[in-house]
Amino acid sequence: MSGSVTLVGAGPGDPDLLTVRAVRALEQADLVLYDALVDPRVVALAAKASRFFVGKRAALPSITQASICRLMIRGAQAGKRVVRLKGGDPFVFGRGGEEAIACREAGVAVEIVPGLSSSIAGPASVGIPVTHRQVTPGFLVLSATPAEPCRAVLATLTPGAVTVVLMMSLRERASLAAFLAEHHWPTRLPAAVVLGATTPEAWSWRGPLGELAQVALPEDRRHLPGLLVLGEVVSLADAIATGAESSEAVPAVPAFA
Amino acid sequence: MSGSVTLVGAGPGDPDLLTVRAVRALEQADLVLYDALVDPRVVALAAKASRFFVGKRAALPSITQASICRLMIRGAQAGKRVVRLKGGDPFVFGRGGEEAIACREAGVAVEIVPGLSSSIAGPASVGIPVTHRQVTPGFLVLSATPAEPCRAVLATLTPGAVTVVLMMSLRERASLAAFLAEHHWPTRLPAAVVLGATTPEAWSWRGPLGELAQVALPEDRRHLPGLLVLGEVVSLADAIATGAESSEAVPAVPAFA
Repeated sequence: MSGSVTLVGAGPGDPDLLTVRAVRALEQADLVLYDALVDPRVVALAAKASRFFVGKRAALPSITQASICRLMIRGAQAGKRVVRLKGGDPFVFGRGGEEAIACREAGVAVEIVPGLSSSIAGPASVGIPVTHRQVTPGFLVLSATPAEPCRAVLATLTPGAVTVVLMMSLRERASLAAFLAEHHWPTRLPAAVVLGATTPEAWSWRGPLGELAQVALPEDRRHLPGLLVLGEVVSLADAIATGAESSEAVPAVPAFA
Repeated sequence: MSGSVTLVGAGPGDPDLLTVRAVRALEQADLVLYDALVDPRVVALAAKASRFFVGKRAALPSITQASICRLMIRGAQAGKRVVRLKGGDPFVFGRGGEEAIACREAGVAVEIVPGLSSSIAGPASVGIPVTHRQVTPGFLVLSATPAEPCRAVLATLTPGAVTVVLMMSLRERASLAAFLAEHHWPTRLPAAVVLGATTPEAWSWRGPLGELAQVALPEDRRHLPGLLVLGEVVSLADAIATGAESSEAVPAVPAFA
């Protein structure tokens, strides 16, 4: 029997937000290699597989990308059905392209199973639509790490022209807020922070961009994947998630009831 | 029994790309109101529901947005579990926000079930990752209809600075290509067209932006939802989807094998 690698998007957290194909791949897997951002309830679906954590964690020694690729490829070459499980979608800041190419180059069959990207499902989980008719013609998703390429794009964008979703941005939120202020982004622009979207530990904040630098993330949830949303769509959250019209900053609003 | 409305994202087409929660909502539905872009295999999962097509089709008389909202709300008020089924994700050019607000205002319980957006899963289905390390810091998704707000954003963007995915853009591809040329977008920038992603009728083209205006869509597939991708990530498709290094324009490459 010849093995294979399946790059599976685990979505934002809640196992019910996996695709049907992702669930099937997990159930059939012999070996699962999973990242730091994958919800443990999702990993648990691979009941009959050997499961290895291969995540990278800031400030801790961790496995190299080359070693992850080697593990995947060797597993497949040994006849195993290998699932490489990634938070969100494999092609949205997930290195799915790099890993797929590594498999191809080694002659290993590779399949991509997309997942819900938290860039869209994260805002949605607190009632924020990344698009809304007559509010924005679209949305821009950027990785704020590394900072320079992200800032080069933000510097040319007309503030508020599209919804902006910034991934891996919370650690540097104060310097990011200062950068946006320098580039004349209005302090009253609606902003939101979402941590651990669709997980039991979900936490969120909403308020004007001018207050972003002062937002205190809860100590016990700083390890969760987080994102920042900037744009008028943020102000729709009350009407969508609760029907209320208040625009106070509020903790987690579970729109996915 | 009190009814409810669930706004369900149907994803790009393939029923295996529905979320687990979307499948459950369809199986439990009493009434399904579905759009033009929803794959018939997905609608069929709502086996015990009354199913009504409420899609808008260009150049044909169609139901108004207000009538769709009225049908949803009246169904829920009559005690039915109503599923409002939309192509892709309800919050990505799907009017999900508008419909959720209409339900809230009528005092009807509403739940949002996200779906895979074809803005990400469409490119992925032909081996194009919307992000790739050291190639792009992110991606921008725009609706090309109406044209003006979209063009205002593209006019300020540095060509090639991020991956650009243009939805509802194929009908106007020649004028869009001319607009980008006027704004100094390089003719050699890799571009792709994807029609009917993840459906049995999927069709795609890849080539330089300078050739986009001349691309002939197959007559029998022009009704399918389509999108345009612009950016260096397009050139990764051969290595990801097939392992080959050719960069010839090719028809449908099913990466989701």
